[in-house]
Amino acid sequence: MQFPNFILYFLLNWLTISYASQQPNIIVMLMDDMGWGDLGVYGQPAKETPNLDKMASDGILLPDFYSGNPLCSPSRASLLTGRLPIRNGFYTTNAHARNGYTPQVIVGGIQDSEVLLPKLLRTKGYRSKIIGKWHLGHQPQFLPLKHGFDEFFGSTNCHFGPYDNKATPNIPVFRDDAMIGRYYEDFPVKKGVSNLTQIFIEEGLKFIEKEQSADQPFFLYWAPDATHTPLYASQAFQGTSQRGLYGDVVRELDSGVGRILSKLKELKIENNTFVLFTSDNGAALVSRVQGGSNGPFLCGKETTYEGGMREPTIAWWPGKISAGKVSHQLGSVMDIFSTVLDIVGIDAPTDRIYDGRSLLPALLDGQIDSKKAIFYYRGNEMMAVRQGLYKAHYWTWTNSISEFIKGINFCRGENVTGVMTHEQTNHTAQPLLFHLGRDPGEKYPIKSTSTEYKQAIVDIISVVADHKANLKPGTPQLNVCDNAVMNWAPPGCDKINRCLKAPASNPKKCTWPH
Amino acid sequence: MQFPNFILYFLLNWLTISYASQQPNIIVMLMDDMGWGDLGVYGQPAKETPNLDKMASDGILLPDFYSGNPLCSPSRASLLTGRLPIRNGFYTTNAHARNGYTPQVIVGGIQDSEVLLPKLLRTKGYRSKIIGKWHLGHQPQFLPLKHGFDEFFGSTNCHFGPYDNKATPNIPVFRDDAMIGRYYEDFPVKKGVSNLTQIFIEEGLKFIEKEQSADQPFFLYWAPDATHTPLYASQAFQGTSQRGLYGDVVRELDSGVGRILSKLKELKIENNTFVLFTSDNGAALVSRVQGGSNGPFLCGKETTYEGGMREPTIAWWPGKISAGKVSHQLGSVMDIFSTVLDIVGIDAPTDRIYDGRSLLPALLDGQIDSKKAIFYYRGNEMMAVRQGLYKAHYWTWTNSISEFIKGINFCRGENVTGVMTHEQTNHTAQPLLFHLGRDPGEKYPIKSTSTEYKQAIVDIISVVADHKANLKPGTPQLNVCDNAVMNWAPPGCDKINRCLKAPASNPKKCTWPH
Repeated sequence: MQFPNFILYFLLNWLTISYASQQPNIIVMLMDDMGWGDLGVYGQPAKETPNLDKMASDGILLPDFYSGNPLCSPSRASLLTGRLPIRNGFYTTNAHARNGYTPQVIVGGIQDSEVLLPKLLRTKGYRSKIIGKWHLGHQPQFLPLKHGFDEFFGSTNCHFGPYDNKATPNIPVFRDDAMIGRYYEDFPVKKGVSNLTQIFIEEGLKFIEKEQSADQPFFLYWAPDATHTPLYASQAFQGTSQRGLYGDVVRELDSGVGRILSKLKELKIENNTFVLFTSDNGAALVSRVQGGSNGPFLCGKETTYEGGMREPTIAWWPGKISAGKVSHQLGSVMDIFSTVLDIVGIDAPTDRIYDGRSLLPALLDGQIDSKKAIFYYRGNEMMAVRQGLYKAHYWTWTNSISEFIKGINFCRGENVTGVMTHEQTNHTAQPLLFHLGRDPGEKYPIKSTSTEYKQAIVDIISVVADHKANLKPGTPQLNVCDNAVMNWAPPGCDKINRCLKAPASNPKKCTWPH
Repeated sequence: MQFPNFILYFLLNWLTISYASQQPNIIVMLMDDMGWGDLGVYGQPAKETPNLDKMASDGILLPDFYSGNPLCSPSRASLLTGRLPIRNGFYTTNAHARNGYTPQVIVGGIQDSEVLLPKLLRTKGYRSKIIGKWHLGHQPQFLPLKHGFDEFFGSTNCHFGPYDNKATPNIPVFRDDAMIGRYYEDFPVKKGVSNLTQIFIEEGLKFIEKEQSADQPFFLYWAPDATHTPLYASQAFQGTSQRGLYGDVVRELDSGVGRILSKLKELKIENNTFVLFTSDNGAALVSRVQGGSNGPFLCGKETTYEGGMREPTIAWWPGKISAGKVSHQLGSVMDIFSTVLDIVGIDAPTDRIYDGRSLLPALLDGQIDSKKAIFYYRGNEMMAVRQGLYKAHYWTWTNSISEFIKGINFCRGENVTGVMTHEQTNHTAQPLLFHLGRDPGEKYPIKSTSTEYKQAIVDIISVVADHKANLKPGTPQLNVCDNAVMNWAPPGCDKINRCLKAPASNPKKCTWPH
């Protein structure tokens, strides 16, 4: 039997209207250590990201979008809380301006007082799933299902290893609130080969299908970690890139993005799904043999130069966001929080300060909020601030000369005298100022005697004063380390006989060398 | 009166077929000192080149395309002759591995023994015009109309200045074979403002219209020079870019590209016109305050690192070249020569060696000639060679330490020890090897003891041996300088009363410091 065309036409319209009246679905794709310059559309010469490049040409490119921190855990915490790490506690006071994160020995994690995005979305009937890397603490009280997620597939920590599973436990892989195995043992990562990204892609597709078939608005937080060392790609992607293993990994993730967007189209929910792609910090130049690219930007992960925090960002929402646009609105992962609340129509709690702002006016109407500022923190210190095209460094630091001599270099091949410093250098009295339009690579400080400097610095000083006046640091979560809290016996280990015996507790100050 | 649709349809088809049977038109757009990273599509963060980005999405991107030399005159000579500067004479033997070009004092220029592209095209009935910068010598015997061009609007040399028009003549502006005025005096360039690019655009549009209305196949060599210092943009583009004056200039050129492509569409000859956009060498980092970007590549103009010679290249031919493609075929401006001959169906003279090869198999059919090599010369020395993804430096040099100390830096903000050398360093016995896929920025030499090195270097050595065995250097044209040959009294100066008195001849060896 064949329907006449006009019936199909009305049917299609009805379906469209019907879907459009639903709550929009939300997908945040967060990469790990992927750099601004790793996508074809952002200038990677190998041009091996056809799906992301297509996503950009069908969506909007955000070249001035930042992570919340030059390191993973704080950046991820800022995304999910809408607040800077200095507020939500993902920093350390053990030493000045140090990058802390959540290794297995960390005692801290996300506090119950923080209200995570999925928790707020639940108030509007959303179901939320995190796939991939959590990194907001691995003790039971910090796990995703305790903070608003309904489902979890992935791991609490980085997939470092392989470890000896006695002296240091391998990282657990969770399904929801129970461990189902461990990396290396049950989920192999061997010599750069693993099918984990494929699992993460499949998990995503299944979740989307399931929620869609239940007419259930959803939030998918898709956070695969294959671009973090040790890199891994599945067999089918090995050797497919000009760029070596790192490129193979990027190709596999790119293909995953393509499959997820295709699934939305197949289910005809692309017009009702907001998708944002970005990364948690700049490419890790220190492990460059297997690392990404920050394009024309200075230095990389761990630093507050542009290469440490500028992210390859694309927003996509067919029918809502016009295709092929570019927005130079300053944005950060914290704005994802606020934007999603704006899309869904939820007011953020009023008892705290949020650093995120909704990007909808920029995404939908091409508006620019020129007052928006980006604050670049390293641990407990505001190192730099950007407003408009000006960036002022209040502090500069790459890493200590003793680390540098040992070969730890966050800025391989780069040397900008007076800008890249091996001592923590305080420029507060006269910040180093750059114009990121003329000089995206931060190579030419504007002379402090110039009219331009004097005019630009006035606004910056006022922005910083406002920021500092309203800053009440949260309780630092990254100060205490203890071997006893490692993933010896995560929830669920007993059911699969994978518990290990924890050593006695011996809390110590964590050491953060840079 | 209205035609019925089917008549219009047949008319349109007839017109299309009619045009398609014509000889294809050729447009080469050659920029001056524009870098690989200056286009949105090649990763410039300001994303201010909508017309070029559209050209790329409607055409094919060539991210592995090179100039013929890291400096202007030799690169331009190589484009128009299809031969390396070492063969066509655009080099110097005054000192080892020095970049020479054609300032006003140069005695040499393009020799009659070289056969330029427009001269060959004439044999198939083409009319050719050069608009913008010639740079192949300014003495009367070297002028464009002596070498196959039918029309010329522009200048023989760089628009350096302003000079005192007595001690050093201002550069003449030509219409065809006669000077019609001089820069600064008759064609003002003042404090970064000039309408020259607008004139070059209008000249191009008029030429296209004229030839098209005469059913005349044409070759337009559009070579505006506004991105070369001293930069200039017309009033309408001043202050329109995030990037300062350099960005204003790029925006104006981008708009010119858009207007030329639109004109082709308006005249319905877009399917019969091959257009190639590229640049003559890398961005000039030494004048960075007003300079371009080489994206993730090392160093810039004057050097044989990737930043010196990798060019932002796009080919466009609707209906022939599929839209939205990328080709990693290695190519160079010399291949433009061979490609155009291939398109038009002309055999190159057989009495000499050509370095260009037709890119049509890559452009039309996606084929890759993996045997193709790129040779990076600096003056009389082959500094480096690329084959596939491997690049071997036989010699390395940035510039002398004495120049460097004076502030002349071709690699601002970059420092790769052992790779960027201030002495001319001979690595011939064991070339420095890079994998440009994994390491486009040439920061990680492959260990000479590795299996990869040993395997890759075998091919490179054989390619270089072949190249050197077949190399018969041409007579160097850039050795002798003489104040008497400056543009005192170019052809046509008498008619407009703009002749100046030349000093007595005093030929000297030219000095090329780097």
